[in-house]
Amino acid sequence: MRAYNFCAGPAALPTAVLEKAQSELLNWQGKGVSIMEMSHRSKDYIAVAEQAEADLRNLLNIPNNYKVLFLQGGASLQFSAIPLNLLGKNNQADYVHTGIWSDKAIKEAKRYGNIHTIDATYDVEGKMAIRPSQDWQLSENASYVHYCDNETIGGIQFGEIPTTTAPLVADLSSSILSTPLDISKFGLIYAGAQKNIGPAGLTIVIVRDDLLDQTKPEIPSLLKYSAQADNASMLNTPATYSWYLAGLVFEWLKEQGGVEAIHKINLEKSNLLYGYIDQSDFYANPIAQPNRSIMNVPFTLADSSLEKLFLQEAEAAHLLNLAGHRSVGGMRASIYNAVPLEGVQALVDFMDQFANKHG
Amino acid sequence: MRAYNFCAGPAALPTAVLEKAQSELLNWQGKGVSIMEMSHRSKDYIAVAEQAEADLRNLLNIPNNYKVLFLQGGASLQFSAIPLNLLGKNNQADYVHTGIWSDKAIKEAKRYGNIHTIDATYDVEGKMAIRPSQDWQLSENASYVHYCDNETIGGIQFGEIPTTTAPLVADLSSSILSTPLDISKFGLIYAGAQKNIGPAGLTIVIVRDDLLDQTKPEIPSLLKYSAQADNASMLNTPATYSWYLAGLVFEWLKEQGGVEAIHKINLEKSNLLYGYIDQSDFYANPIAQPNRSIMNVPFTLADSSLEKLFLQEAEAAHLLNLAGHRSVGGMRASIYNAVPLEGVQALVDFMDQFANKHG
Repeated sequence: MRAYNFCAGPAALPTAVLEKAQSELLNWQGKGVSIMEMSHRSKDYIAVAEQAEADLRNLLNIPNNYKVLFLQGGASLQFSAIPLNLLGKNNQADYVHTGIWSDKAIKEAKRYGNIHTIDATYDVEGKMAIRPSQDWQLSENASYVHYCDNETIGGIQFGEIPTTTAPLVADLSSSILSTPLDISKFGLIYAGAQKNIGPAGLTIVIVRDDLLDQTKPEIPSLLKYSAQADNASMLNTPATYSWYLAGLVFEWLKEQGGVEAIHKINLEKSNLLYGYIDQSDFYANPIAQPNRSIMNVPFTLADSSLEKLFLQEAEAAHLLNLAGHRSVGGMRASIYNAVPLEGVQALVDFMDQFANKHG
Repeated sequence: MRAYNFCAGPAALPTAVLEKAQSELLNWQGKGVSIMEMSHRSKDYIAVAEQAEADLRNLLNIPNNYKVLFLQGGASLQFSAIPLNLLGKNNQADYVHTGIWSDKAIKEAKRYGNIHTIDATYDVEGKMAIRPSQDWQLSENASYVHYCDNETIGGIQFGEIPTTTAPLVADLSSSILSTPLDISKFGLIYAGAQKNIGPAGLTIVIVRDDLLDQTKPEIPSLLKYSAQADNASMLNTPATYSWYLAGLVFEWLKEQGGVEAIHKINLEKSNLLYGYIDQSDFYANPIAQPNRSIMNVPFTLADSSLEKLFLQEAEAAHLLNLAGHRSVGGMRASIYNAVPLEGVQALVDFMDQFANKHG
């Protein structure tokens, strides 16, 4: 049987997607070969790739003046690619710090230009919150403003899209496709696939086309957005199987009713889990209510010596990968699009039984 | 039914590997989740990753002073990573030109340092051959000498490992694991996975550990071999599913008897095909005998107006992807490790029937 998988990433994929992939793994649509054995330049594969892009454009309502790129290397390679592509002649950008992932982006950007950091978190009655963008001290000459919408490790998320003069660049790795989004408010969006899109090894970049032509001379050719856009992300062989699987996920998401429909379910899921935690004396979440992530829910046990037992008993109940990130400890339930409401209900039921037994 | 797939890449995978992957796609070893839904930092996944590396080390007899990296971005990203990692303070390297892929490596390397090019092909009675390394004019201060062992598009291959003073760097994308190899003769080997290793989206780098600490300051952090080596190729989330599939391919190759055993079969396959072409007036191959690729066999038809029909009839006979690269035209049969002898026999039988009908 399939377990409920609360892994932060590589994360759960919809069972229906895996079943479809399984059914055609050896023989894609009667062609006698696997889709992963097909040339990326074949008519059949290009149709799959283009359909995936069309579905993503449809799901996120992406305007025509944005390029959609299917790349490799993860969000972390974009930490380099973004400054190399976008710092431009000002060679300056603002980066908003909200946790471990935005910090990694900052460290890498600083290797390429003048980076001004805005420390945006603050304490509200013992809980962590994000300062609204009107309170940020932004630079006058920034080529862009970078932020991480949802900090996967900290479980802290922007409640709204920041307002800035310079183009907004967002790491949406762990929140893309979870919530409707006005793409036109962004200069660039990027996301590693391994949370809401597909398997690890694929990275989506959505970039406004007027930002494409200002790369630094030392940029590796494959990292140039303009070159990838001109070649439909096939400057070299892309991660064809991951791209195909992403396409199946987009198809599945459309069948669920799209991003608005999944957002309602995501709110139901996160409200159920946070609601249970808040009424409990046994569990606690460290984030202020308006900035709680709807995708990653970290929580602690009143008695941290029970953590190992909690994880063991959870696993026995087919509730997997609830350990917090190694850098922060505690527990974390990642409840991405592919984790169903029943999975969160099963987790809450388990948490309640555990608290009653040990609390 | 499964067809015989002669695609140059992404290429055929062993049917047994795909069957294994299919059987455990939704539920890996009874864990209740797919291997692609597992954290790369989980005990289970790390065991899979380490086993794949151990099997590759075993298959290629890789000495202990070499690091084995499982990266993303394809061989083309290595065209940038190699000069950024290895040019060192001399900022100079020799690159051997033998065709389209070595040419791409040269163009990218020239963006980073002083690159001396050796044009190594020459004409032997109307056939293309590679000049032996003792005839090359190498630089005195080259940090390394780069060559492409097997030009996938041209179907031209080195018959032996070149002899150089500077460390040898080889693109083995389309020949790795096809032939026994003395790794100790190389400074660095790299290969995109999508020919003899696994699906596209994984790149193997094997690098001698004394070459690791001379990176250029502008190198994107993820491209630093030393950093990837220090983090067991998990500086960020690797392409976990591709890595797993590569592991299955390595396991399969061990079951076949390893690289020596597959090399014998590869020789049988390529001898069968070249032998048939050579005795035919209808088909021709443009490469001199000692430099014929054992993996990629380009051939032309005496009457090029029959090419379209050839491809149509081949496809009807379940012999797929025989068109030559779009830049050179003609035909090409890629006969990687996963293409069985029976497949090559079926191709030769078909070619013979076609020649008899139309010749």
